[in-house]
Amino acid sequence: MRWRGILRTLGLLICLFSVTLIPPALIALWYQDGGGLAFLVAFVVSLIVGFWVWYPNRAAYSDLKVRDGFLLTVLFWSVLGCVGILPFWFTGELGLSFTDAAFESFSGLTTTGATVLSGIETLPHSILYYRQQLQWLGGMGIIVLAVAILPMLGIGGMQLYRAEIPGPLKDAKMTPRIADTAKHLWYIYVALTVACAAAYKVAGMGWFDAIGHAFSTVSVGGFSTYDANLGYFDSALINTICGIFLLLSAMNFAVHYAAITGRSFRSYTQDSEVRAFMLVQVTLFVVVFVTLLSQQVFGSAAETLDQAFIQSVSISTTAGFTTADFSVWPLFIPVLLILASFIGGCASSTAGGLKVVRVLLLARQGVRELNRLVHPQGVYSVKLGSRIVPPRVVEAVWGFFAAYALVFAVIMLGLLATGLDQVTAFSAVAACLNNLGPGFGEVVQNYADISAPAKWMLMLAMLFGRLEIFTILVLLTPTFWRS
Amino acid sequence: MRWRGILRTLGLLICLFSVTLIPPALIALWYQDGGGLAFLVAFVVSLIVGFWVWYPNRAAYSDLKVRDGFLLTVLFWSVLGCVGILPFWFTGELGLSFTDAAFESFSGLTTTGATVLSGIETLPHSILYYRQQLQWLGGMGIIVLAVAILPMLGIGGMQLYRAEIPGPLKDAKMTPRIADTAKHLWYIYVALTVACAAAYKVAGMGWFDAIGHAFSTVSVGGFSTYDANLGYFDSALINTICGIFLLLSAMNFAVHYAAITGRSFRSYTQDSEVRAFMLVQVTLFVVVFVTLLSQQVFGSAAETLDQAFIQSVSISTTAGFTTADFSVWPLFIPVLLILASFIGGCASSTAGGLKVVRVLLLARQGVRELNRLVHPQGVYSVKLGSRIVPPRVVEAVWGFFAAYALVFAVIMLGLLATGLDQVTAFSAVAACLNNLGPGFGEVVQNYADISAPAKWMLMLAMLFGRLEIFTILVLLTPTFWRS
Ligand SMILES: [K+]
Ligand SMILES: [K+]
Repeated sequence: MRWRGILRTLGLLICLFSVTLIPPALIALWYQDGGGLAFLVAFVVSLIVGFWVWYPNRAAYSDLKVRDGFLLTVLFWSVLGCVGILPFWFTGELGLSFTDAAFESFSGLTTTGATVLSGIETLPHSILYYRQQLQWLGGMGIIVLAVAILPMLGIGGMQLYRAEIPGPLKDAKMTPRIADTAKHLWYIYVALTVACAAAYKVAGMGWFDAIGHAFSTVSVGGFSTYDANLGYFDSALINTICGIFLLLSAMNFAVHYAAITGRSFRSYTQDSEVRAFMLVQVTLFVVVFVTLLSQQVFGSAAETLDQAFIQSVSISTTAGFTTADFSVWPLFIPVLLILASFIGGCASSTAGGLKVVRVLLLARQGVRELNRLVHPQGVYSVKLGSRIVPPRVVEAVWGFFAAYALVFAVIMLGLLATGLDQVTAFSAVAACLNNLGPGFGEVVQNYADISAPAKWMLMLAMLFGRLEIFTILVLLTPTFWRS
Repeated sequence: MRWRGILRTLGLLICLFSVTLIPPALIALWYQDGGGLAFLVAFVVSLIVGFWVWYPNRAAYSDLKVRDGFLLTVLFWSVLGCVGILPFWFTGELGLSFTDAAFESFSGLTTTGATVLSGIETLPHSILYYRQQLQWLGGMGIIVLAVAILPMLGIGGMQLYRAEIPGPLKDAKMTPRIADTAKHLWYIYVALTVACAAAYKVAGMGWFDAIGHAFSTVSVGGFSTYDANLGYFDSALINTICGIFLLLSAMNFAVHYAAITGRSFRSYTQDSEVRAFMLVQVTLFVVVFVTLLSQQVFGSAAETLDQAFIQSVSISTTAGFTTADFSVWPLFIPVLLILASFIGGCASSTAGGLKVVRVLLLARQGVRELNRLVHPQGVYSVKLGSRIVPPRVVEAVWGFFAAYALVFAVIMLGLLATGLDQVTAFSAVAACLNNLGPGFGEVVQNYADISAPAKWMLMLAMLFGRLEIFTILVLLTPTFWRS
């Protein structure tokens, strides 16, 4: 392991992250909300820590190997998550324990959006802004992770999509060209954010809310500055804007890029994953709409349409915005949507879940198995678009699926052992592993009332989900640490 | 499709099955319980139906192809399940609706052991005997299915184990040799039944109960002649006997055969699946024992030992015998055991679940994926014993796993749509798909109170589980019906 190289990069990242504590401090100044000191202290502490980690290793050889990449990725998210705790912990007004501060930080950075806070309308603007910004930065991190780091590490199925997209994403190493692509995808991310904030403002939000909610929309995060979440605004227009930007943010960013550079809408219609994603979304919307309508949950068809659209998109893309207490809808719907969050969004988006392309591959492989049973001598291949998917990639996707199921079961059993009931445990693990946010049972409002061990397990679930399981699992193998 | 050949075989099977309605009629005579007429009528009806199906096709060409095999297998279980309804339906004393009679019949024949009956102590002996015999016959059917039919149909992973066992099970076609093997495995099944009944008798049961419970033990069925199930006897000795025979019955019958013909215990210790099975069993027992002890659920260590052993074995092997209301134990335990029932017993046993060999292969493949991530250029293979498992088999097992998860999710959503709560729906699908039996929530005592559509969905789940998913799924593909 190239420890010094890893520490050098890590130190730099911490310094970089510390700078992001300045905007909330400025917000505190602007609104005179008295929350500035916590951010200033956190800034200084993290800058010193970052410098202290970086300085002794500043001359270290920086050409990291694959194994170092795994460790750096996990450390990156863990350490930034820990630095992110500081403002929550230092703001005495919140009265948060260390565990709760950590939960809020990891939930923000992983764009999960589960919260331990309530009465958030009354909190300082600086803290509210900081939570939204955490999600937005998390989203930026995920784009680099998905586009540059995970394919380099060979995490199942990710390298696949790169081969599918024609153009700039074909290289196997972290070349300047990939760094360049990541930069372009960031531009798209920022552009989406600006457009989303503007749309929210036009729809009636103030600038503070508009920017904050744009942050948590394009990052598919789901944090809000109100306890009632998106439901606070009670506006079909805002719900529709949110739904549309969630759909855009949960699509493959590389496809956006291809559409922009090629100036053609055909990038969307030709991409297998985007098509499957839209098929899932339309199906869910129709099922939820028809069920809500037939059960007369809302007074009018227009309101049903609005609620069905925003809730089906919000939960299935793993955003987790809520406009109504959808957990009291006919139980079929919330469970369907929670199960849909296991599919989640496209690879190389800011959404969570297994990712559409993986589920698509599993489905195609399943159909192939059925065909093989009928015609044992027949030759069938798994295709994506016009390309045959190599068996190696399909195997990796299967492994991913099984690892997901295993991690899910283990963490759920852990939660049950802490005394949670089945409904709470099941939905909480699903909500955190899929980086979704809201659950049922004891965690339907927020995650404040569950025990500290349960919270730490759920933080682990968030990291597992965000880092695509294998990145963490591989650290637990003897092979990784040997030689 | 060779319809006439299929009908010919089906007709013969119905005639054969009708003969099994004679013993309950004799029991009715012996105990003078007034239940005999229902069996006599059912016997005559099914004999006529069978004859009527067989006679016109008696000269049909009998060399069935693989596709015919799928259809025949599904029809075999569905039609016998339907014939099995008759005695329940004709016995007016039971007051069962057609749905309830069907539920009891399919639950018996698939060795699921879920029941809609209560107050069963007061029912005629003939009906009680008939329920136990249904499970026993189901178990015989499963052995033929697992040893002869499924491998011939190439259902994922089954053909594999055959290659592992040295000796008589290597052929790919239904040769006289395989038929001969099936016969030998039946001898083992009968021998286990006799030994189990004798042991129960010695431990204090009457002959009626001893034979009845031996039937539902070696078939890993879980039906009892008492509402309190095995708990009625309140005997650590009986519990222990039950646990031991469950372990034997959930082991690969081909390994028993190899041990007997080779006169060596090494068949067990050398078989990867049996070793993994025992590892799972020991782990579960220790975890359940320690948890029960630390939470002081029972008064003494001896009682804890007894209960931990019988409940962990009974649920995880998918027998579903209960000695206590284990659903009120610390929630961690029942959920752990329900999850363990997804692993279930060995392939080619009478137990349900995914089967140990498949889970073992998934685990090995998962480890291989992790190793590959660390050493992308390394060559790793999945092994079982000393043999390398062909990629084709591993792919089939993955497909099986995903199909299992899909069927689970779809049926669970269906149950939720009928208005069941999450806990009930989850546990009921798990209990029926894994052919386990008891669930939680509304179905913790029995399945009487859920709606008719929910019962039919659960019967479908039982069939899916018993026929290893693919046998039914393949009938739903266009490829199957084409050409
Ligand atoms: K989220
Ligand atoms: K059973």
